[in-house]
Amino acid sequence: MAKKITIYDLAQKLNISPATVSRSLNDHPAISQKTKDKVLSVAKETGYRTNKFAANLSKQKSNTIGVIVPKLNSNFMSTVLSGIEKIANDIGYNLIISQSLESEKKEKLNAKTLFDSGVDALLVSLAYETENFDHFTTYTDRKIPLLFFDRVCDLPNCPTISIDNHAAGFDATQHLIEQGCKNIAHISGSLKRNVYADRFDGYQRALYKNNIPFKEENLYESDLSIDNAKTFVERIKNSKHKVDGIFVSNDTFAVHCIIELKKEGFRIPEDIKIIGFNNDPVSEVISPNLTTIEYPGYKMGILAGESIISHLSGSINIQSADQIIIKHKLIARESTQR
Amino acid sequence: MAKKITIYDLAQKLNISPATVSRSLNDHPAISQKTKDKVLSVAKETGYRTNKFAANLSKQKSNTIGVIVPKLNSNFMSTVLSGIEKIANDIGYNLIISQSLESEKKEKLNAKTLFDSGVDALLVSLAYETENFDHFTTYTDRKIPLLFFDRVCDLPNCPTISIDNHAAGFDATQHLIEQGCKNIAHISGSLKRNVYADRFDGYQRALYKNNIPFKEENLYESDLSIDNAKTFVERIKNSKHKVDGIFVSNDTFAVHCIIELKKEGFRIPEDIKIIGFNNDPVSEVISPNLTTIEYPGYKMGILAGESIISHLSGSINIQSADQIIIKHKLIARESTQR
Repeated sequence: MAKKITIYDLAQKLNISPATVSRSLNDHPAISQKTKDKVLSVAKETGYRTNKFAANLSKQKSNTIGVIVPKLNSNFMSTVLSGIEKIANDIGYNLIISQSLESEKKEKLNAKTLFDSGVDALLVSLAYETENFDHFTTYTDRKIPLLFFDRVCDLPNCPTISIDNHAAGFDATQHLIEQGCKNIAHISGSLKRNVYADRFDGYQRALYKNNIPFKEENLYESDLSIDNAKTFVERIKNSKHKVDGIFVSNDTFAVHCIIELKKEGFRIPEDIKIIGFNNDPVSEVISPNLTTIEYPGYKMGILAGESIISHLSGSINIQSADQIIIKHKLIARESTQR
Repeated sequence: MAKKITIYDLAQKLNISPATVSRSLNDHPAISQKTKDKVLSVAKETGYRTNKFAANLSKQKSNTIGVIVPKLNSNFMSTVLSGIEKIANDIGYNLIISQSLESEKKEKLNAKTLFDSGVDALLVSLAYETENFDHFTTYTDRKIPLLFFDRVCDLPNCPTISIDNHAAGFDATQHLIEQGCKNIAHISGSLKRNVYADRFDGYQRALYKNNIPFKEENLYESDLSIDNAKTFVERIKNSKHKVDGIFVSNDTFAVHCIIELKKEGFRIPEDIKIIGFNNDPVSEVISPNLTTIEYPGYKMGILAGESIISHLSGSINIQSADQIIIKHKLIARESTQR
């Protein structure tokens, strides 16, 4: 590797003191514009690299924000990340992004690595598995801002950004009931995570409000990997009580249920009505088009980015805000038509 | 913010010298295991933060790899990133990820920010717009490893990872010809980018090989945003020469072409056969299922991550490898059936 250019090299080249070079690079008022221009021009020419490490070390600031997501290759998550990156990039912060791959162990490791890397703040959406939150106390103890989005948990002084999953689950189920469904199944992700637990809760509340008893056999909890769609459809086929409506906790799984149900000869929406969650682009590609709940991921990313950066710049204190709720919306399409 | 714990605080607490603390934390052989355990336990208890900044500063290593992608929220890109992150994370490197949003200006800014952040290496997939590559000379001049993937360019000592887009474009077009198509349109992204230029080239070569003259009106160059699908279908509808086959440079656009063509009463594959590119999950959701070229994004990410990390660890010198080509594969489905 080529030798690193230092301010001493620049000083020698320009025949001025290293202190003057340093001050020029930092736009110090005591240095004339002429000198600054000269220094900058030589710095550029020689490939001098601003030593942000050293600068940040003394300021104890890294200008980086750590992000832990369950997985990068999900349409919803990559849309949220795109919003966070947009804001961070505009302000000059770097994002260090890591994925837990739904594992608690990996999430712990990521939290430690990011802590050791000196991130100024951490944004997290929890893994499926995570039950214990001790790996975040390193942050909270040292008052490093920590914000949870989408899959959140309740830690003191850690704000959260999400939609009202409880209300969204209620709306989805109420919609199926209004479209005439009497026996509604629910496909959920891990009930350890707020997003799925709250949607399930909303589902139950809508049934209760409409005097429909909840049947244990109508709850199907899984990791929502699409390979399970076939197994689920088998279960529907063999169920004693005819299922006529399904509320699925994400669009990808809902779409694969439609594909498998159609293979088995079910007509959608005549025999079974289906509603998904997220409004992923795929919901408009499947035939019939999928009714769903719009979850504005890009807006969530923008908001998460803005909140953390406003906090870091001192303009607001997010640690006093408990919860930010983004509005959801039901989008009725063909898959639930009467 | 709480006061930062230093090795001096640990030394005082343990009543040993700062040097012994430092050596213990670095697992120095001269220090007994008993002392190391004591130091580590107090370090953990007090929330001591390993100062990687300082450590890396002296080693001139940041243990971070910069990545610039056109946009985060694309299925293909987030799959590649997922592979890169997997490798980097396993080895203990952090990824700083930024998006150019297809803008040359933003790509330049990102390259500068990442350079100033002291990344040990840079991975890039180029923006649609980029015509000038001077923003990468800061890296090449200083021998900071620079690797291009998918959308690549030809810079000295910068390896590239891609598929053989030329051959893939040929295969796609040859398949349509073998399925009986006589007048094949091609929908391309910006021809400034190798991926699209090479696929177009392969398309022309297949036509030539089969004695089918290329017609300028059959090339449709766009930014591949799905809003353009309607316009394209209008053009097909009003074309003098009946188009009976379409080779589209990405699956998302191909899927929206199918939707719009069906709305206009075209039967797929009877009236028009369509082949896409990438093998995105959406290709199996559309009806009829989309024939496509498999582009193994995850594998590309793994390979990009491994190449750069092997180079950084000194085990291989990627700057001597010009080009890594990943195998593509044609996946025949309903949309091109005879």
